[in-house]
Amino acid sequence: MATAAWLTVLTTTDAADKAEALARGAVEARAAACAQISGPVTSVYRWRGDIETAAEWQVLFKTTGARYDELEAYLRRAHDYDTPEIIATEIVRGGADYLRWLEEETAG
Amino acid sequence: MATAAWLTVLTTTDAADKAEALARGAVEARAAACAQISGPVTSVYRWRGDIETAAEWQVLFKTTGARYDELEAYLRRAHDYDTPEIIATEIVRGGADYLRWLEEETAG
Amino acid sequence: MATAAWLTVLTTTDAADKAEALARGAVEARAAACAQISGPVTSVYRWRGDIETAAEWQVLFKTTGARYDELEAYLRRAHDYDTPEIIATEIVRGGADYLRWLEEETAG
Repeated sequence: MATAAWLTVLTTTDAADKAEALARGAVEARAAACAQISGPVTSVYRWRGDIETAAEWQVLFKTTGARYDELEAYLRRAHDYDTPEIIATEIVRGGADYLRWLEEETAG
Repeated sequence: MATAAWLTVLTTTDAADKAEALARGAVEARAAACAQISGPVTSVYRWRGDIETAAEWQVLFKTTGARYDELEAYLRRAHDYDTPEIIATEIVRGGADYLRWLEEETAG
Repeated sequence: MATAAWLTVLTTTDAADKAEALARGAVEARAAACAQISGPVTSVYRWRGDIETAAEWQVLFKTTGARYDELEAYLRRAHDYDTPEIIATEIVRGGADYLRWLEEETAG
């Protein structure tokens, strides 16, 4: 697959203040242009054979394909889960000025 | 289009307990590795010529392309809307360990 | 890239009533079939060298690739930000009846 020019990247964590710290750190490092925190959401998953639910906070980052590796590396360092959710979706269209802003904000 | 390896799949329903039942059922059936429920959200749509609003809950499933048909079939059986929202977006990048976990959790 | 048949389009604004007005206007104009408003969410971004946070509301539109330009043009007219977030993601699979409904609702 060709590299996506722009991406949204989603992670989840178990406290609002941890979500905000992840968002701030990524923007500070210019690994993302911005992020939006939603929550609490109810996560549903299997754990040791049972279906569990837990309150979590979602962090949706906006970045470029060029900065994805930096963002993933940051999240692996900063996140306190062993296997954090890190999933990226391609932005296929958008406002040209907004996409330019994404690129400027994440430029080293 | 080539088949996506991993997907997020979104549905909405009109009560929190229905959303949780859909999430639990999909994870139980290994049609999804996990799901996150957000809400209430405000849905806006046209109904018989008027614009209506309604409170709904979003369920965001994480699964593989290989398990999509199973997840859609489950949602059609379990959802009580005639035409439920079922829309899938490709996960184009992600944490390798997380994506491997998605595959393991949804393996038959 | 080939044109996507169906899209989700995300914007954010700073008040719940503005979010609902954007959603209603887009559905009224058949630039989107429906929209879901989530919030408040916490937006994190850089502003004049500092990392700021603000409460915002997300509006997630469902539309067709054929109607994307109309939706973007509407959002540019109706949104009161200079550079509003407008980002689109492709719907790669979905319920056939739901996708047909998207097309019917957005047909001129």
